[in-house]
Formats: sequence, structure tokens, C-alpha cells
Amino acid sequence: MSLRLGQIVDALGGSLEGASADTQIQRIAPLETAGEGDLAFLNNPRYQSQLAASRAACVIVAPAMRAAALARGACIVTDDPYAYFARVTQLWVRAQGQAPVPGIHASAVVDAQARVHPTATIGPLCVVERGAVIGAHTVLKSRVTVGERCRVGARCLVHPGVVIGADGFGFARQRGEWIKIEQLGAVRIGDDVEIGANTCIDRGALEDTVIEDGVKLDNLIQIAHNVHIGRHTAMAGCSAVAGSTRIGAHCTIAGAASIVGHLQLADNVHVSTNTVVTHSIARPGQYTGVFPMDENSKWEKNAATLRQLYKLRERIKALEQARQGDQSATQQ
Amino acid sequence: MSLRLGQIVDALGGSLEGASADTQIQRIAPLETAGEGDLAFLNNPRYQSQLAASRAACVIVAPAMRAAALARGACIVTDDPYAYFARVTQLWVRAQGQAPVPGIHASAVVDAQARVHPTATIGPLCVVERGAVIGAHTVLKSRVTVGERCRVGARCLVHPGVVIGADGFGFARQRGEWIKIEQLGAVRIGDDVEIGANTCIDRGALEDTVIEDGVKLDNLIQIAHNVHIGRHTAMAGCSAVAGSTRIGAHCTIAGAASIVGHLQLADNVHVSTNTVVTHSIARPGQYTGVFPMDENSKWEKNAATLRQLYKLRERIKALEQARQGDQSATQQ
Amino acid sequence: MSLRLGQIVDALGGSLEGASADTQIQRIAPLETAGEGDLAFLNNPRYQSQLAASRAACVIVAPAMRAAALARGACIVTDDPYAYFARVTQLWVRAQGQAPVPGIHASAVVDAQARVHPTATIGPLCVVERGAVIGAHTVLKSRVTVGERCRVGARCLVHPGVVIGADGFGFARQRGEWIKIEQLGAVRIGDDVEIGANTCIDRGALEDTVIEDGVKLDNLIQIAHNVHIGRHTAMAGCSAVAGSTRIGAHCTIAGAASIVGHLQLADNVHVSTNTVVTHSIARPGQYTGVFPMDENSKWEKNAATLRQLYKLRERIKALEQARQGDQSATQQ
Repeated sequence: MSLRLGQIVDALGGSLEGASADTQIQRIAPLETAGEGDLAFLNNPRYQSQLAASRAACVIVAPAMRAAALARGACIVTDDPYAYFARVTQLWVRAQGQAPVPGIHASAVVDAQARVHPTATIGPLCVVERGAVIGAHTVLKSRVTVGERCRVGARCLVHPGVVIGADGFGFARQRGEWIKIEQLGAVRIGDDVEIGANTCIDRGALEDTVIEDGVKLDNLIQIAHNVHIGRHTAMAGCSAVAGSTRIGAHCTIAGAASIVGHLQLADNVHVSTNTVVTHSIARPGQYTGVFPMDENSKWEKNAATLRQLYKLRERIKALEQARQGDQSATQQ
Repeated sequence: MSLRLGQIVDALGGSLEGASADTQIQRIAPLETAGEGDLAFLNNPRYQSQLAASRAACVIVAPAMRAAALARGACIVTDDPYAYFARVTQLWVRAQGQAPVPGIHASAVVDAQARVHPTATIGPLCVVERGAVIGAHTVLKSRVTVGERCRVGARCLVHPGVVIGADGFGFARQRGEWIKIEQLGAVRIGDDVEIGANTCIDRGALEDTVIEDGVKLDNLIQIAHNVHIGRHTAMAGCSAVAGSTRIGAHCTIAGAASIVGHLQLADNVHVSTNTVVTHSIARPGQYTGVFPMDENSKWEKNAATLRQLYKLRERIKALEQARQGDQSATQQ
Repeated sequence: MSLRLGQIVDALGGSLEGASADTQIQRIAPLETAGEGDLAFLNNPRYQSQLAASRAACVIVAPAMRAAALARGACIVTDDPYAYFARVTQLWVRAQGQAPVPGIHASAVVDAQARVHPTATIGPLCVVERGAVIGAHTVLKSRVTVGERCRVGARCLVHPGVVIGADGFGFARQRGEWIKIEQLGAVRIGDDVEIGANTCIDRGALEDTVIEDGVKLDNLIQIAHNVHIGRHTAMAGCSAVAGSTRIGAHCTIAGAASIVGHLQLADNVHVSTNTVVTHSIARPGQYTGVFPMDENSKWEKNAATLRQLYKLRERIKALEQARQGDQSATQQ
């Protein structure tokens, strides 16, 4: 498998400099490990020293890096090297002829009353229940469940083990026992959504759980019932959103972050790794709450003190008041 | 699909006021979005303003809300509106004829030496291994694995992707390598247990992992080997219990909480979201340990200080002692 | 099912004392619940009182415990009782004839271009994609997916629901939308690796994600693209490693711990439960960062104070400076 540099710039634009369009590319590789025949990219000017040392056949760079790149060898100059690199990986997959084949795998269990677009791919051992809808060019890789009446839009990619439309976790407590609240809603997923392996998106209790267009979910994520996630928001692995919370558009939720239920997060909110969001966030920005890691022995001392932090504050207050008392006494 | 109000009170009790028993209900809906033809409920008196504004055909309310509800329109008066609402959702599902069909789906792989009750439903692409037992009216939705000799009681609901009876994580370390401890126990699950999507319950090392009657587990939960969970305890999504821990009855474990191994939790213990339980809990109550979220810049300052909290405490102590020294000096 | 004590010492060594080699063992049991016919073990001298009280037919002990054990009854003396116990469980399983049967289950979907060793076991409803390689004596229990070109070594045990080789979570952001970076790498898993239920190991972006020999992964773990995990490292349930992080050999990562991306962890690093590793760790040792749990009311006070910890530090500083000012004044 190889591509000519000319094919790449013909397909994706950018300006090829310092090499012939006929140069063959055998591999796309990281800048530091790229060798002859490899195409690499430089996104961050901080790695400029890697650029000089790289043995790549060609490097994708921004205009500001053009001179430095040419001093080393061939380059493709483009405004956004990282996006260009992403598109090269897509071109690569298409050139390999690895696009998924439309149709329903013989081992999948698709209800007669489900509606699967003829261009969609339902992979091996998937389950698509009654009334579910799978949009054009959407791919369920393998072992995916789409529950009753749930809808997945067009051009979605759903990885193995994903469960869309299990019951939300709803019970009324009466005399110490739990009475099930049947979950009558469904899940609605927009277009261009990617869902990582073993992620779960529960159906709504009365209304639908909604994932808007362009949302990207990593692996092992929990989306509870009646959650609403706005356009182009991305959530990293092991994050979780509890019931009825509404997350805005263009947010990023880092790995293992948790958002409790019944909150509202504005657009462009960025939640740091392992942070627990316990109240609504009205303003864009970065939000964090992580206990800093330390050597265990230091942590033990600090954690013990933390358990009496409130009393420490009282002691500081007492010292301040005592000092004010002294000064008043002195001034009299 | 619709139900008459008369059918609902005939089946579930409560007193219908301000409307004819023949009034048709088309949908169950939240109070704030309910429209004509919808049945809603008011559980929390705090939402009384929503009651006045609601356009629902009928609202389920407690006796104390009866007058306020009637001022607006029809209501069903009942002692516990939330439990009543839960039962209405169940009635709704039965009326739709959506009850699962007993039997083993053709695509499921059920060992000849497994014992499945004739009223149980084994959905598509499930695996039930040798010696496993599935009780009456229990439903394995789809893509569920029940391992060798594991037992699931009656009226359980097991969502897609659940793994019951994978090996517990047990190894002896010798000369830097891990020697597997074969997990010879199994999993015993009581009656009326619900298990959410992709949740894992490991088999015991020597004895069984036990989930008692009425336990409710949400999605993506990890139950390690030899754990014992008491009756009617509920655990929310992404929570985890490490090996050999025993949780009492009627506990609630909130989302993403972790309980380390070899602990005992009393009955009626409530663990807050993302809290790490590191020691046994002998008394009922609410327990919490979460780093408060903040704007990232504020968090950075506080986290940096936290790493020297112990020293801060020493400085306070020094100030206090110095002050005592001053006072002693003054008094002499 | 039973084994004679003589069969055990013949197979595993150790010295049997105080009982005949013909004594039949019916069960392996914990010291405190073992009864007649049971074999137990004592690993930790702290549990010596349990030894005296145990009704086990025979107890596996270290040489230092020999006299105490014999005072009670029969024992097997061996240098490492816990490792010996592990080997007895393995012997038990072999004696029961429970070894997995090599071959591909009829319900599994294995691509014609995958390479499965004839001694490997591909259980029910597994998916093995094109170009994947499964080594000798490796067992995929059931409902496991091994993606294109991914390689699993020899003698591995992969539990139900595992996903090896889903796409890493890689996107370039452009004009507020996410452009997919096709994940062109694969996953390479060494020999003697165990992978717990519903764990996910993503394929690399350009190069491979690597799990070295002897690594043990528990359930519901997330291993992101391009991670590298060194030999004999063990990770407990619900832990997660973000992209491109490299973990050394012989590390232990406790349950629900998170390691952020692009870090390096040395060999013999031990990360405590729920700890978030946010920077590289160059030295062996135990590392921790967990908010201590408390009664909710105490936590609330401490958490509120924590949010102004930085200001508290400023107040201590002010008090210290004031005191120094006083002393300077006094000395003048």
C-alpha cells in the first residue's frame, strides 16, 4: 500500500514543496519515528527540534514553519497541519479499500420492524430491536445493541459492545423496596456521531435521551436517561453524565469526569479529567476538581490534616482575633 | 395507545377527582411539558408553581396538594404520588402488550446443562454456560453472559452486555510474576434484581459472590469477587466494589463511587457520588469525599496549597505556641 | 470431585505432615469457614488465631508456622503458601477436567483472513476480524471482539465483552467540528496476559498499542491508543490509561485509578485506588491522591474551606509577618 504525494495534494490541497509529486509514501508516521518513505506532520511549533531531526520523506507544516521544513527536505504547506493530517488518514483508509460494506451481517439480529438504511452497515452479532432506525452510511461495528424505537442518524460510527437504549435507572422507593419506573422514552442520536466501545446510552424515562450532531463519545462512557448533549461536544473515556443533565455544544469532558444529575452546562465548557461537576455551569471556561497526587506518605499527612481543615480555619480566625485584641489593648 | 383514567384508578387505586373516568390518556409526561391528553405527577411540593402552570389532563398528587391541584383541573389523589406514577408506567407497558416473550432466542447459546425456567426470556446472542440457573420470569435482554454454575433468581431484569461470573481478579505474586488463582466460586443473584448494561459481577474465589433480593444495579458497575450486597441496596452507574466487601441492606451507592476491598458497610449507609470508601462504616448515614470543583485557575492555587497542608498546620501550631509564650511572658 | 493430599504434594511439592497421603480433599476453602474435608491456607501470620480455630482437614503454611499448624492438625509446609494455594486451584480445575476445548465455536464470527492457533479456544459469539492473530492455548471466553490486524499472544485469557482494537479517540478540531483521525495502528498483546470482562484496549493512531507479557487487567478498564504497558504490571477494575502513556514493568494500578496521557511511569510504581496520575513518575514507590471520606456534614465544612485554602495560606502568612513585625519592634 502506498500513495503518491501528488495524489495527496490533489485530493486535499496544500502546497507540495521540495519533492516530486511522484514521491511514493508507504506510511504515515510520527515525526520522531518516521523514516524514508514516511509522511509526518508538525502541529506544534514547540516540536521544531524534532522537525530538524526527522528522517520523514515529507512533513506537513504550517506556513510559519515552511522555511524550517524546507531546510530539512520536502514538505506540504497548509494552514492547519493537524486537520490536514486527519484528512490524510481518511484518504489512506479509502485508498486501502477498507470502507465498510453496506448491509446486515448474517449473524446480526435485526427486528423486522427496525428500519435500516440500505447504505448502513450492521456488523456481526449486533441486535437492532423493533422500531429502531439506523441512518445512511452509519456503521455498527460488531456486538452493538440498539434498543426499541431508538434512532441513530447518518454517518455515525458505533464501536463494539455499545448499548443504546437500555432502561434508565429509575425507581420509586416505597416501604424500603424499589418500584420500577418503566422507561417509556427512547434515545435519539444525530448525524456524524461516534460512540466508543462498551459505552452505554440509556433511554429516557418519559421523553428521549438526545445526542446531537457531531458528538464524539469515547469508550466506557455512561449517559443516563434524559441527558441532552449539544452539538460537537466530545467526551473522553470513562466519563459519566447522570440523569436529566443538559450539556451545551462544543464542550469537552475529559476522561473519568462525572457530571451529576439535573444540571445545565453552557456551551464551550471544558471539564478536566476526574473532575466531579456538582453544580450547573453558566459560563464557558475550564473547570477542575482533582486531588493532587503525591508520594503516599505525604498524601497521608495532608489527607489527615484535610479532615480537620475546618478546625484549622477556626484556629487561624482565633489567632487573628487575638492579635486584633492585642492591638486594641496597645492603642488604648 | 391510550388508557382511560378509570382503568388507571381501577387497577392502582387512588381517588380520581375533577374528571370523568372516561377521559383518555395518550401519554405520561413531565409536569412542565405535559399537554392535553397527558397524565403527569407532582411529587415534590417545591414544584407547586409548575402544577398551576401545567396543561396536563390530569395530575397525580398527594392529599396535601389536592386543593391546589383541583384549582387547576383534574387530579388523582394518592398517598405516594411517585410510587403511583411508577405503577402507572408499568400498567402502560402491560397495556401496550410489550411484555417479553418467554423462551430462548434462536441466536442465544445456552449450554445443555444450564437450567432455564420456562417462563424466563433469554434474548438474542446471550450465553448461558453449563450449570447456570435462570429463574422464573427473569429476562436477559440481549448479549448477556451468565457463566458456569451462576444462579439468577426470579423476576430479574438483566440488560445488554452484562457479564455475570467472569473470573475474579486473583493472583499470587511470586518472583515478580503473577500466578493465577482459579476462581472456584460462582455468583448467586436473588429475586427482583435489575442489572444495568455492561455491568460485571465476578465469581468468587472459593465461595460465591452474592447479590441479595431486590438489589438494583445501574450500568457499567464493577462487583468484584466475594462481594456481598444486601437486600434492596441500589448502586448508580460506574460505581465499583472491590473484593470481599460486604454492603448492608437498603444502602444507596451514588454514581462512580468506589468501595475498597474487605470492608463492612452497615445497613442504610448512603455513599455520595465519586466518594471513595476506604474504611468500614458501622453507622447509617450519608458519607462523602469529593474534591470540590472550581474554575481551573482557582483549583490550581488551592491544589498547590493542599500539597503542603500539613506544613500549614505546623505553621499555625507555631503561631499558637508563640502567642502562648508571649502571654506567659506578659503574665510573669 | 476430590483430590488426595498425596496427589497435591506429588504435583506441587511441599512437605505433608500430620496426615496420610490418602486423605481426601473435597474442597478448597478459606481458613475461617473450612470444615472437614477442606484444604485451607495461612498466608499472613497475623491470622494465626484463625489457624488454631480452623476445622480444615489440612492447612498450607510457611515453615515458621509449622509448629503452630501441627499443634492443630495436618499441614503442608511450603516456602510461599499463597503461591502454593494458587497452584492448588489450578490443579483442582485440571482435575475437574474443566480445561477449555480448543477450536472455534460455531456461533463465533472469525474472518477467513484471521489466524487462530489450533490450540486456541474462540468461545461463543466472539468476533475475530481480518488479519487478527490469536496465539497458542489462548482462550477468548465469549462475546469478545478482536479487531483487524490485532495480535493476542499465547496462553492469554480474555473474558466476555472485551473489545480489543476499537478505534482510538482521535480527532482534529477545525472550525468547531471534529475531523476523524483514522486509527491506522493495531493492538499487540504479549503472552500470559489476562483481560477482564468488558475491558477495552484501543488500537493505536499510527503505531500499535502494546500490552507486554504477563500483564493482568481486571474488568471495565480503558486502555487508550498508543499506550504501552510493561511486563507483569497488574491493573485493577475500572482503572484507565489515557493516550500514549507508557507504564513500566511490575507496576500495580489500583481500582478506578486514572493515568492521564503522554506520561512515563517507571518500573515498580504502585498507584493507589482512585488516584489521578497527572505527571510522570520517575521513581518506584506508592503514589496516592484521594479525598478522604467523612460524614457528609463534616465533608461539607471541609470542602467549603478547601475552596478558600489559598486565602487561608495568605492569612497564615500575614499572621507570621505581623508577629515578626512585633518582634522587630520589641527588639528596637
